[in-house]
Amino acid sequence: MEVEEEVRDIVDQVKDLHDSATSFLSASSHEEVSLRNRSSAVDASITRLHSTLLSDKHLDPKIFDKAFFKDLSLSLHMKKLEEDLQRARCMLADGDTSSFLPSKPQGRFVTMFLGPVNVRASRKDIQLKVKEEYNSYRDRTALLFLVFPAILLTLRSYVWDGCLPAFPVQLYEAWLLFLYAGLAMRENILRANGSDIRSWWLYHHYCAMAMALVSLTWEIKGQPNCVQKQKGVRLFLQWAMMQGVAMLLQNRYQRQRLYTRIALGKAKRMDVVWGETAGVDGQLWLLCPLLFTLQGFEAYVGLQLLRTVLTGVVAEWQVLICGVLLVVMAVGNFINTVETLMVKSRFKAKMKRSKSRAELD
Amino acid sequence: MEVEEEVRDIVDQVKDLHDSATSFLSASSHEEVSLRNRSSAVDASITRLHSTLLSDKHLDPKIFDKAFFKDLSLSLHMKKLEEDLQRARCMLADGDTSSFLPSKPQGRFVTMFLGPVNVRASRKDIQLKVKEEYNSYRDRTALLFLVFPAILLTLRSYVWDGCLPAFPVQLYEAWLLFLYAGLAMRENILRANGSDIRSWWLYHHYCAMAMALVSLTWEIKGQPNCVQKQKGVRLFLQWAMMQGVAMLLQNRYQRQRLYTRIALGKAKRMDVVWGETAGVDGQLWLLCPLLFTLQGFEAYVGLQLLRTVLTGVVAEWQVLICGVLLVVMAVGNFINTVETLMVKSRFKAKMKRSKSRAELD
Repeated sequence: MEVEEEVRDIVDQVKDLHDSATSFLSASSHEEVSLRNRSSAVDASITRLHSTLLSDKHLDPKIFDKAFFKDLSLSLHMKKLEEDLQRARCMLADGDTSSFLPSKPQGRFVTMFLGPVNVRASRKDIQLKVKEEYNSYRDRTALLFLVFPAILLTLRSYVWDGCLPAFPVQLYEAWLLFLYAGLAMRENILRANGSDIRSWWLYHHYCAMAMALVSLTWEIKGQPNCVQKQKGVRLFLQWAMMQGVAMLLQNRYQRQRLYTRIALGKAKRMDVVWGETAGVDGQLWLLCPLLFTLQGFEAYVGLQLLRTVLTGVVAEWQVLICGVLLVVMAVGNFINTVETLMVKSRFKAKMKRSKSRAELD
Repeated sequence: MEVEEEVRDIVDQVKDLHDSATSFLSASSHEEVSLRNRSSAVDASITRLHSTLLSDKHLDPKIFDKAFFKDLSLSLHMKKLEEDLQRARCMLADGDTSSFLPSKPQGRFVTMFLGPVNVRASRKDIQLKVKEEYNSYRDRTALLFLVFPAILLTLRSYVWDGCLPAFPVQLYEAWLLFLYAGLAMRENILRANGSDIRSWWLYHHYCAMAMALVSLTWEIKGQPNCVQKQKGVRLFLQWAMMQGVAMLLQNRYQRQRLYTRIALGKAKRMDVVWGETAGVDGQLWLLCPLLFTLQGFEAYVGLQLLRTVLTGVVAEWQVLICGVLLVVMAVGNFINTVETLMVKSRFKAKMKRSKSRAELD
């Protein structure tokens, strides 16, 4: 009987396939564990050796400068060792080994929405695809970040007679909630995949999500006396427009600069740009004032909201919460921008020092 | 020089490690592709053979019953073939081969929030962990689903004097938004991992998310005349309590039943229970009326909301949208429950028919 044979054949095939799959999975899992152990060990060695090199140089600069490294070639040699080590570190973090390096634990935010699913890509090309998509998400949303409030403010002036209707503002707030949820999720995933995003930016997004949620419940008051009652909303929309411009600038110029840094081996391929001034150099004088102005204006809007509560113009709890959140975000952004700048300048000073020493020697 | 040697050693180690990682990744990727192709081929053969067996039996029942299968042993033999095939299918879908079977494409919802990250687990034990966590998420939230509105309604009657304040209701709505986002995310991920969740339940969660978002912008009216103005909210909270009871019932009894079905090879290990009556048998007479009552009550609440808009008691667009969404969800749930019941009864009738035929023969 023909069908019977076919069934028996299929059953055999499934058994074969099952055995192959089992042995493949167990073999690859073994090899993965071994690669993971070797990667961790090498990573630890690099870190240890790096600090040895640094302490050799810094702990006793006299010995370094005079006794051992009197002649230029030795000093240059030392520099070459450091560069070799740096290149090895880059190869480890940016190549196929990267997925075997110990990673930051998956954030609670991701687990809260997704459960215990693994968001770490096992291949570098997929990791980079995730990063590319993140960049394109930022491109798409930055434009909307600028255009959406611009339209609202324009319509308010020329069509709505100075009085924002509730629906479009709430639509904007719902969009903000969606936007920040997407950003927070993507950046958590990027971090799990080895990106260097500061944890503050994640907290910032959580604050922004909370604010969007709270402002959705905030009743937009209409006539009479729109101008006074909607002052907070108007200020917020103006701030959002500025933020949109800053995001566009970062996306264009900083990212270009980041690619250069990656090519020079100064940044990892999974790194991204954020409100910090990472990767900026030529645009520093354009972006820095803009960022600080933004942060100042954000704090101003927050304080304005708090003032309206404290003077009793409005008594809604939403205004209080939004005010506090805006001030917190402004202060956090400021601290993080300053920290990044300090890291940058320290790095530059170190570079300069070692360069001039090499020249002196 | 000692440090120099160490650096050279590290550089060599990194190169070695890099080569091992590259060759491991390319080898395992090759093997994965081959396993995937073989799995698809076997899967297709099983489907083809299954329909051959069915058409042999059904296309010409007279031939089946009289000419060829007059004697009992042949008919039983045919049944055994079907069972063998079923067991092979189970082994393919539930064993280590499962991650190589073609899967449903990752939903747009997941991609929207996560980007192109892969949420499919490569190992069965991780897939099952994802499912376990989903079950515990449902356990945790079902209780809250019951308790949260119960507290609100109790406080309303005994403390708040028949008038719900806005904040706790909005807190509840925000929680619903979070809950349904988590459910939608997890079920999308389960589907990508081979679970059999009907797509309607995902659409249901999107509707519920939209409703939570819309109701957040809906101003909860206070005194005077609370009872009339808050009727919709009150009805919705009552419905939510009933839904909580149904979820608890499903979680306890249906899941137990599902485990039995999995043990019998009648369900896949990645299958889950939902508002449909999947896996119910003993509890069918308890759960079915409850589910239909719930759906009826949901539609009633929706229609009540629509009535208040149409008669002009309230003029807010939020009430209109919430009413429409509730009716849509009720109708969708009803259709899906009926469809599941029909599949079940058709399956049972088939079982009965083949059993009685075997006895007749």
